Amino acid sequence: MPIPAEILRKKRDGHALTSEEIQFLVDGIVAGTISHAQAAAFLMASCIRGLRSDETVALTMAMARSGVCYDWRELGYAVDKHSTGGVGDKLSLLVAPIAAAAGARVPMMSGRGLGHTGGTVDKLESIVGFSTALSNAHARAQLERLGVIMIAQSAEVAPADRILYSLRDETGTVESVGLITASIISKKIAEGANGLVLDVKVGRGAFMQQMEDARALAQMLVDVGRGAGLDVHVAVTDMNDPLGYAAGNWVEVLEAERALAEPSACPSDIEELTLHLSGAMLQLAGLATTLDEGIARARAVWHCGAAWERFHQLIAAQGGDWDGSRERYQHVPTFVLRSPQNGYIAGFATRTIGLALVELGAGRRRATDSVDPAAGVVFHCKRGDWCERGEPLATLYACASDRFDFVAEQIRSAIEFSSEPPVPRGGLILESFGS
Amino acid sequence: MPIPAEILRKKRDGHALTSEEIQFLVDGIVAGTISHAQAAAFLMASCIRGLRSDETVALTMAMARSGVCYDWRELGYAVDKHSTGGVGDKLSLLVAPIAAAAGARVPMMSGRGLGHTGGTVDKLESIVGFSTALSNAHARAQLERLGVIMIAQSAEVAPADRILYSLRDETGTVESVGLITASIISKKIAEGANGLVLDVKVGRGAFMQQMEDARALAQMLVDVGRGAGLDVHVAVTDMNDPLGYAAGNWVEVLEAERALAEPSACPSDIEELTLHLSGAMLQLAGLATTLDEGIARARAVWHCGAAWERFHQLIAAQGGDWDGSRERYQHVPTFVLRSPQNGYIAGFATRTIGLALVELGAGRRRATDSVDPAAGVVFHCKRGDWCERGEPLATLYACASDRFDFVAEQIRSAIEFSSEPPVPRGGLILESFGS
Repeated sequence: MPIPAEILRKKRDGHALTSEEIQFLVDGIVAGTISHAQAAAFLMASCIRGLRSDETVALTMAMARSGVCYDWRELGYAVDKHSTGGVGDKLSLLVAPIAAAAGARVPMMSGRGLGHTGGTVDKLESIVGFSTALSNAHARAQLERLGVIMIAQSAEVAPADRILYSLRDETGTVESVGLITASIISKKIAEGANGLVLDVKVGRGAFMQQMEDARALAQMLVDVGRGAGLDVHVAVTDMNDPLGYAAGNWVEVLEAERALAEPSACPSDIEELTLHLSGAMLQLAGLATTLDEGIARARAVWHCGAAWERFHQLIAAQGGDWDGSRERYQHVPTFVLRSPQNGYIAGFATRTIGLALVELGAGRRRATDSVDPAAGVVFHCKRGDWCERGEPLATLYACASDRFDFVAEQIRSAIEFSSEPPVPRGGLILESFGS
Repeated sequence: MPIPAEILRKKRDGHALTSEEIQFLVDGIVAGTISHAQAAAFLMASCIRGLRSDETVALTMAMARSGVCYDWRELGYAVDKHSTGGVGDKLSLLVAPIAAAAGARVPMMSGRGLGHTGGTVDKLESIVGFSTALSNAHARAQLERLGVIMIAQSAEVAPADRILYSLRDETGTVESVGLITASIISKKIAEGANGLVLDVKVGRGAFMQQMEDARALAQMLVDVGRGAGLDVHVAVTDMNDPLGYAAGNWVEVLEAERALAEPSACPSDIEELTLHLSGAMLQLAGLATTLDEGIARARAVWHCGAAWERFHQLIAAQGGDWDGSRERYQHVPTFVLRSPQNGYIAGFATRTIGLALVELGAGRRRATDSVDPAAGVVFHCKRGDWCERGEPLATLYACASDRFDFVAEQIRSAIEFSSEPPVPRGGLILESFGS
C-alpha cells in the first residue's frame, strides 16, 4: 500500500510519478481516502515541477476512468471539437451540425462557462425547453439518427476532474499545461470520442496570452491525446477580438443560427474557423482524405442548407422550442451604446468585455452562480471599421437593466479607437497540426 | 481583502510573500476561512520554492500570535533550550535544572515524541504524578521560586502551528528549513522566551543526515530567531550514536537523575553537551560574560549538588513522586540482549533503534498513540568497546513483554561490530555560533 506523503514528497522533489502512483492518488481522491489537502499538495507540486507527458497520460486515464465512460463504437467513429475558451466563441454550435450533416458522429459533451469565457451548455440552455441531460437510450438513438448530441458533463462523468478542477481554482493551480490537458482530454475519453479537434485560443480574450504558452499547451494536448488513444488535430487560433458580432448566450445562438441559414452573410472570422474545425473533424473521421477535402465537404453541407436543417433537428430532438425562444427574447430590455468619437476601431480589450458580460449576468464568477440567458452584447462594428461620433457601437441585452450603465461604461472603455486604419491581420489560424 | 488563490499563485511562481499576505493566510487557517487545501498548497509551494528569512520571520510571528503568548518579563530574562531531536536525548532534563540552579529563569515548554525521536514531555510524564499542565498562577509562582518550569505545549499555544504541523505530516512537506524554523521559533516566542539555545542534531539518529542541511537549518534558526527578537545560540551536534546509555522514557529520566547526582559517573557525551548547552544559556541570560565562564558556572552548580537538588524540587513542585516512581518501575519485565559475536562495537544504526523503541511502546507512530512510560533500552556498551560473545549488550524494558523478541532482533541488527577498534571521534559539538 503506497504512502500518500511519500508520493507527494517524490513529486515535490521533482521526480516523475509512475502510472500506479498517479492511479492511487486519483482513486483515493474520489474515494475520499486521499484528503483535499493531499490533493492540493499534489496539484501545487505538479504546477511547479511540471508533469511529463507520460505522467499526464496516466493522470488523464485515471481521471477518465474515475466515473462513467460512454462507448459509441457500434455507431462508428465518434469525433468531437473542444475549445480552450474565448469571447463570442459559438463555433461548437456551427461545427457540430455541419460535421453531423456531412456524415460524422458527434457526441459533444460541453461545460458551463466560468470567468470571462462562455460555455456551450449555457448557450444551448438559452433555447426554451432545450435539455442538455439526455438518458443513455435517448442519446444513443439521437446520435444514430442525427449524428449529433450536445450534452452537459454529468456528475457521473470524470468525478476526479470535478474535484481537482474546483481545488485548482481554490489553490491557485489552474495555470498548468499538464493539469489543463488532463482535464480536457479525460472528459473526451469518458465521452467516448475517437477523434478530437482542438481549438487552442491565444490572445487578449484567451486564457493563454502568449504564443509560446499556447504552442506548449497545443503540443501537450497532441501528445497526451494520442497517448490516451485519440486521433488529434490542433489549431492555435487568434482570440484577440470577440468572434463574430455577438457575445452572450441567446445572442450567440441567434448569430450561429443566422450564419447556418445564410452562409453568404456569415462574418468572415466565424466562417474561417468553422470551416477549418469542421473540415478537420471530417478528416479525422475518415470522411475526407485531406484537410482541404474536409473543408470542401463542410462548405458543401453548409451552403446547401443541410447543416442548418440538422441544427434545427438537433434542437427539436433535445426538446428545444425555436419559435418560442424567439418570442421569449423579443422584449428583453436593451441599451444602445454610441460612439464617443469619430475614428477607426483599432481593437478590443476582449478579456474586459468577457468580464463585463459576467457583470451583466451572462456568465459566472463562481461555479454555483446562475446566468441570465438573455444577457449579452451585439457589436455593430468590427476591427478596422470607421465609426462616426454618436453612431451605435453595440447593443446590450439583459433582464437586469439596472446594470446597463455600469456595463456599458466597461464595454465602451474596451473599444479602442485610432485616427488611422489599423494594420489588417492575417488569418485566424495561426498554426495547425495533426492532419 | 486579499484573494487566497492569488497569494498562492505568487508563491507558486517563486515570488516572496509580504508579511501582510503571510499574516492573512495564518489568520485564515486558524479561523477556518482558508481551507486545509489552500494551506497545503501554501506548504507545498513553500517547500519547493523555499521561504526567505524575512518570510520565515513573518510566518513565525503570525504563528506565535495565533494563540496565547506568555510574558515573564517581570521575573527577569527567560532562557530556554530546544533540540531538533535525537535518540536518548535527555539533555533538557539536565540543562533546565542546571541553568535554574545557576540563577537563570527557564520557562521550558516541550513537545511529545513523534516518530523515531523521543519527547521531553513523555519522559517527564513517566514520573508518577508529574503534571506538565500547570495553571498560570502555579507556573508563575514556581518560575519565581525555582527558576524553572517544564510544561507541555497546550492547545491554546500557537494553534496555527498545530494545524500546519499536522498538514505537513500528511502532505509530505515536513522537510523544509523555513517551515521547521517557523514551527520551532513560534512556540518559543509564545512561551515568552528572551533567549534560546538550539541543539541542531545531525547524523544517523537525527532528522538531518547531512552536515550542509544541518548548517542551513542552524543559520535559518539564528536569522529568524533574531528577526523575531530572540537572543540565539546554536550548536550543531553529532547524533550518530544514542546519547548516554539509556533510550526510552523512564530509563532516560533515571539516567539523567543519576548523572545529576554523580557527575563523575556521567557518560562523557552527556557531560560534554550538557555543559555546552547550559553554559550557553547562562551566557545568553547575562549570568556569564563568555561561553567558557558559562560552562564553568554550569559545572560548579552541577558538581556541588545544587542542580540535582533543583531537579528534585522541580519534580516535587509539579506533583511528581520520585520514590513512588522508582517503586513502580521496579518490576517491569526485562529482556537481556546478548552479543552474537566477539568484536569491537563499530557503531549504531541509531534511527533503527529509535524506530524499534516505537515498536516497543516507548514512542508514537501517530500523534494520537499512547506510550508505555516503562518501555526503553539500556545499552551496556558504547562505540569502541570490546564485547565477548554472549556478554549482555543491552537490556530491554517494556510492559508488553511479547514484543521483546521482535524488538531485540531489530536492536541487535542495529549494533555494528568490527574486528578492529573504530577510529575515535572528536567532540560532539561540530559547530556552534551565536556566542
